[in-house]
Amino acid sequence: MDIQQMGRQAKQAAHQLAQISSEQRKAALRMIANRLWAWRENILAANLQDVEKAQAAGLSEAMIDRLMLNESRLAGVIADLRQVAELPDPVGEVFEARRLPNGLCLHKRRVPLGVLAVIYEARPNVTIDVTGLALKSGNCVILRGGSETIMTNRQLVAAIHQGLEESGLPLAAVQFIDEPDRQLVYDLLHLDQYVDMVIPRGGAGLHEFCKQNSRIPVITGGIGICHLFVDESANLSEALKVIQNAKVQRPTVCNALDTVLIHCSIAEQFLPELVKLLKRDGVRFKADDKAFAILHGQFADVVELAGEHDFDTEWLSLVLGIRIVDDLEEAIEHITLHSTGHSDGILTENRKHAERFIAAVDSAAVYVNASTRFTDGGQFGLGAEVAISTQRLHARGPMGLQELTTYKWVVEGDYHVRG
Amino acid sequence: MDIQQMGRQAKQAAHQLAQISSEQRKAALRMIANRLWAWRENILAANLQDVEKAQAAGLSEAMIDRLMLNESRLAGVIADLRQVAELPDPVGEVFEARRLPNGLCLHKRRVPLGVLAVIYEARPNVTIDVTGLALKSGNCVILRGGSETIMTNRQLVAAIHQGLEESGLPLAAVQFIDEPDRQLVYDLLHLDQYVDMVIPRGGAGLHEFCKQNSRIPVITGGIGICHLFVDESANLSEALKVIQNAKVQRPTVCNALDTVLIHCSIAEQFLPELVKLLKRDGVRFKADDKAFAILHGQFADVVELAGEHDFDTEWLSLVLGIRIVDDLEEAIEHITLHSTGHSDGILTENRKHAERFIAAVDSAAVYVNASTRFTDGGQFGLGAEVAISTQRLHARGPMGLQELTTYKWVVEGDYHVRG
Repeated sequence: MDIQQMGRQAKQAAHQLAQISSEQRKAALRMIANRLWAWRENILAANLQDVEKAQAAGLSEAMIDRLMLNESRLAGVIADLRQVAELPDPVGEVFEARRLPNGLCLHKRRVPLGVLAVIYEARPNVTIDVTGLALKSGNCVILRGGSETIMTNRQLVAAIHQGLEESGLPLAAVQFIDEPDRQLVYDLLHLDQYVDMVIPRGGAGLHEFCKQNSRIPVITGGIGICHLFVDESANLSEALKVIQNAKVQRPTVCNALDTVLIHCSIAEQFLPELVKLLKRDGVRFKADDKAFAILHGQFADVVELAGEHDFDTEWLSLVLGIRIVDDLEEAIEHITLHSTGHSDGILTENRKHAERFIAAVDSAAVYVNASTRFTDGGQFGLGAEVAISTQRLHARGPMGLQELTTYKWVVEGDYHVRG
Repeated sequence: MDIQQMGRQAKQAAHQLAQISSEQRKAALRMIANRLWAWRENILAANLQDVEKAQAAGLSEAMIDRLMLNESRLAGVIADLRQVAELPDPVGEVFEARRLPNGLCLHKRRVPLGVLAVIYEARPNVTIDVTGLALKSGNCVILRGGSETIMTNRQLVAAIHQGLEESGLPLAAVQFIDEPDRQLVYDLLHLDQYVDMVIPRGGAGLHEFCKQNSRIPVITGGIGICHLFVDESANLSEALKVIQNAKVQRPTVCNALDTVLIHCSIAEQFLPELVKLLKRDGVRFKADDKAFAILHGQFADVVELAGEHDFDTEWLSLVLGIRIVDDLEEAIEHITLHSTGHSDGILTENRKHAERFIAAVDSAAVYVNASTRFTDGGQFGLGAEVAISTQRLHARGPMGLQELTTYKWVVEGDYHVRG
């Protein structure tokens, strides 16, 4: 496997792809969707092999569930791909057009980023999702999936290649590193001559590895220690529902709630109600001293004193940190110290407090009176997302098709010269 | 010098700065301009020491000219700073506002990037330019200037600090690494916990060092192998003026012309006129076989056959590559192979050719009938620029104040929960 060669071919394919019409790219995605469905027996048979290997290796049930495909899951992923095909195409959009005093006409024109590298772990749906988003936005992609799903991914990529071929698109538009050798990831991260953006999709370890070793800009993200602050003016019965939704609706994802901060003046009333409600959903609580003092007597079975690192932990499970704060400023200070800059919110009826919170909390998504669970490309109306960025360059929060593009400046004159 | 400590302080100062009003930041820039001018005797005395040291070390005249300040140069840089103070503030701008079908209100709000690190070489004006652009856009900056100007930079930073203090802004908003130890650059590039963007301002070696060693996204740029293609339909007398301007007006900068490509059907007429004109400006030529055959007889003194690497060289001097191409497609192919993606243009009266060129040439700035010399923040109407990016992430081409910002998503609801 010659990774330099892959990079070169991807760059070349990116030049071709950038000049293919929107209609052609849409048609290619539809064709790929057809081919994936036609190829489903091969795909599911390969997936079964991956699953059996994982079981033999003693992987956890949760892990096996993640890598498992069946006909209905595959149908769902293909349906998503068909939806991406129909989204508005960001490529070619003209913006910031203006005429300068000297008569030069300037505009920015949206173009594909070029070559993406996506490094992911077990989920095979990422192979299809990323292919769809990359091609739709005119980009090429080099995929590096987890070794646990290598058999499945080979079949998926074979089907994708068939679709590319039948659509007249270069096969190198979607390339797959199909050897599990970790050195290849390292080599991929050094292809700065050919690759424009690296997107890791996985845990903190993968993100850190990419950041440490990449010569290419890395979009880190997907790790959320998320907060909601219940201000004294909040509608408390509504606040209960929002906190319950943010914590319980899908606790294993990055935009799920980790810590709730509560204004001291409402804590005695609100906290027991909150714990009573969430206890029924199986939530356990890590409370600071003050909250512990309020809750300990009544809820000793589910409330324990928070330890040193508990407010710096992304729970990804039915655990909720609770802290009582003196006021809005102390809440902001806590969030500034402990948030990962993903999704943080305030529940309040006080407009000034809402404005202050929005201005002071510097997270990718800042909420007023809504659940943090909305931080998601689909929920934000982007159609789909390739990642949720918690770094600051290029894009923050859910990254959809537009975030997979850049622009060129187009300057038109009448034989203008600079004086 | 504790570089970790610098990073921590910068991050802290960035939180403060992000909440300071636009008026306060403007006032601080004006105050810094005043302090720099009041401090001019110290600054010029220190600069004299730097110049004497450079002379003793046998540095080139060009290098010494770059690091030299005098009262009028300093006054010019301070005037630029005052201009930056008066530019529109990008911070706080609301964009892409929308109301989703479920009633959630979403918008993006422009916020500072946070902490910039700027690594530069001899020019001391960069210290002031970058300070102005960073503070205006609400960012903190860690400066690492060249060792040749360390005495000057210390005085500049002392004046800047005085201005910050008198304006009530944190001193850590502008920090300066005042030890020449190169290890500190390496350490700076590893401060990914605190620094959001690295901007190298210098030669290809510095850019490469940053890309290889940085854990922080690096804005590479400033290196331009720039092309103009003279189509058969071009107004040839106007084309002569544009090429002359692009090559001669300031040959030492990145947007100066390096190679002219000429349609074969006009080459016999156009080339001798071009060489005759530019020869008077002292230009020498590297011609491909066909152009050499046309020019050799008449202009043997200034035209030589292009060598293997000549079309991959950024000349930064009065040298011009010439190549004859069969058609537009061959010109595009040449540019795709040899351009650094900075500034490339076509001279043509044929609208279809112009459109094809714009679509196919993927450079930061693509020109139709204008000199490549316009690629510049000031010329593009950005007011000023911190760099010219030739990478694709975040920003391409001249980077002004807006390109030193990112955004947060603000989501406002009525206690919305996700279904």
